[in-house]
Amino acid sequence: MAKSTQLIDNEVFRAYATYAAIVLLKMMLMSLVTAYFRITRKAFANPEDTASFGKGDSAKKFLRTDADVERVRRGHLNDLENIVPFFGIGLLYALCGPDLSTALLHFRIFAGARILHTFAYLIPLPQPSRGLSWAAGYAVTISMAYKVLSKALYL
Amino acid sequence: MAKSTQLIDNEVFRAYATYAAIVLLKMMLMSLVTAYFRITRKAFANPEDTASFGKGDSAKKFLRTDADVERVRRGHLNDLENIVPFFGIGLLYALCGPDLSTALLHFRIFAGARILHTFAYLIPLPQPSRGLSWAAGYAVTISMAYKVLSKALYL
Amino acid sequence: MAKSTQLIDNEVFRAYATYAAIVLLKMMLMSLVTAYFRITRKAFANPEDTASFGKGDSAKKFLRTDADVERVRRGHLNDLENIVPFFGIGLLYALCGPDLSTALLHFRIFAGARILHTFAYLIPLPQPSRGLSWAAGYAVTISMAYKVLSKALYL
Repeated sequence: MAKSTQLIDNEVFRAYATYAAIVLLKMMLMSLVTAYFRITRKAFANPEDTASFGKGDSAKKFLRTDADVERVRRGHLNDLENIVPFFGIGLLYALCGPDLSTALLHFRIFAGARILHTFAYLIPLPQPSRGLSWAAGYAVTISMAYKVLSKALYL
Repeated sequence: MAKSTQLIDNEVFRAYATYAAIVLLKMMLMSLVTAYFRITRKAFANPEDTASFGKGDSAKKFLRTDADVERVRRGHLNDLENIVPFFGIGLLYALCGPDLSTALLHFRIFAGARILHTFAYLIPLPQPSRGLSWAAGYAVTISMAYKVLSKALYL
Repeated sequence: MAKSTQLIDNEVFRAYATYAAIVLLKMMLMSLVTAYFRITRKAFANPEDTASFGKGDSAKKFLRTDADVERVRRGHLNDLENIVPFFGIGLLYALCGPDLSTALLHFRIFAGARILHTFAYLIPLPQPSRGLSWAAGYAVTISMAYKVLSKALYL
């Protein structure tokens, strides 16, 4: 057991684990928001999901797309496109031995930016709120990737 | 070599590696299922994919969406939305030094739930089969995230 | 600090970190390509993104799908479906202590295949360019998964 728990005793790695878990949980929350909008807007993608509304044409009309549902789904996909690289590059970054304060700065900005991005997408806030929050998270990931490549480069 | 192979000698980490590889392979299988349905249903997304059916209008009619193809694609996307958080949070969880039996319970339920989910989506089985298998995998990931945050929290 | 930086001193792990960072950055680049096509083709998904084009019907016409934008988005999703398993299975593989030359061969073929895949998708090149580059990356990931399961199997 000793060996595998040592990594988690390192403060940078603990900070990474904390913020990685937070943004992954935030991403998972999008599934619940999608389900909420699908149920309240009565807009489903699968015939078996509308079976409780009766058979035939009465249920078929709920097989439709809804603007609010599609908005949440775009937000969810955007999370996948951005949080997955953060998770991967962030893990490698945390293993590169950065300064704790620098690492915390990266992780905090990313988590804050993605939470802002979700609010900007779902409310929605006028642009460039969503664009800027997206760009902040993107820049943090690029910055960590630069550190990883300058420290570990082995082609 | 010594240092980097020690992690894989830990039983919890080996169990994580096994189940993570299984669910990632299961997710990759969805690409083949999509290709199978695209070919048998003759429903493609890109003009260059239909070139072997001839030129012009005769090939253009295969550029269409098909209900079965879209169903597999939704299943694939659902895998991405759920297996990615499991992979990430599960990795951090495995590094937190949980009991082997508790960890195995988490990993086994998740892998079983996602395999069931795929069958429920593709056959399709009547609801709530898909909903419950989705919820079981979701609950496992939340439970692991709780362990990670209670063990590693460093904000 | 000592413990957590040792992993990155291992040559196999450095090679993994390098190629994983490269393919994740390549995947992130797809966001910029999407934004470029959305702006040049004037094809947006959200009403708030078209606000700068004026109010009402004059802006509404830019809420549309465009063939080029959809092509980039399919390429981005395909990256998610393939680079995510590579990242996950590759990490476990790198921790299994493979030979450095074997590991480098896997990582290089995968990175090359995915870069080719992107060009094949975006230009687009005639098939089977895209199909073969996809298959090469897929085969590399399966090969690494086989190594992980044969080394770590603990069910």
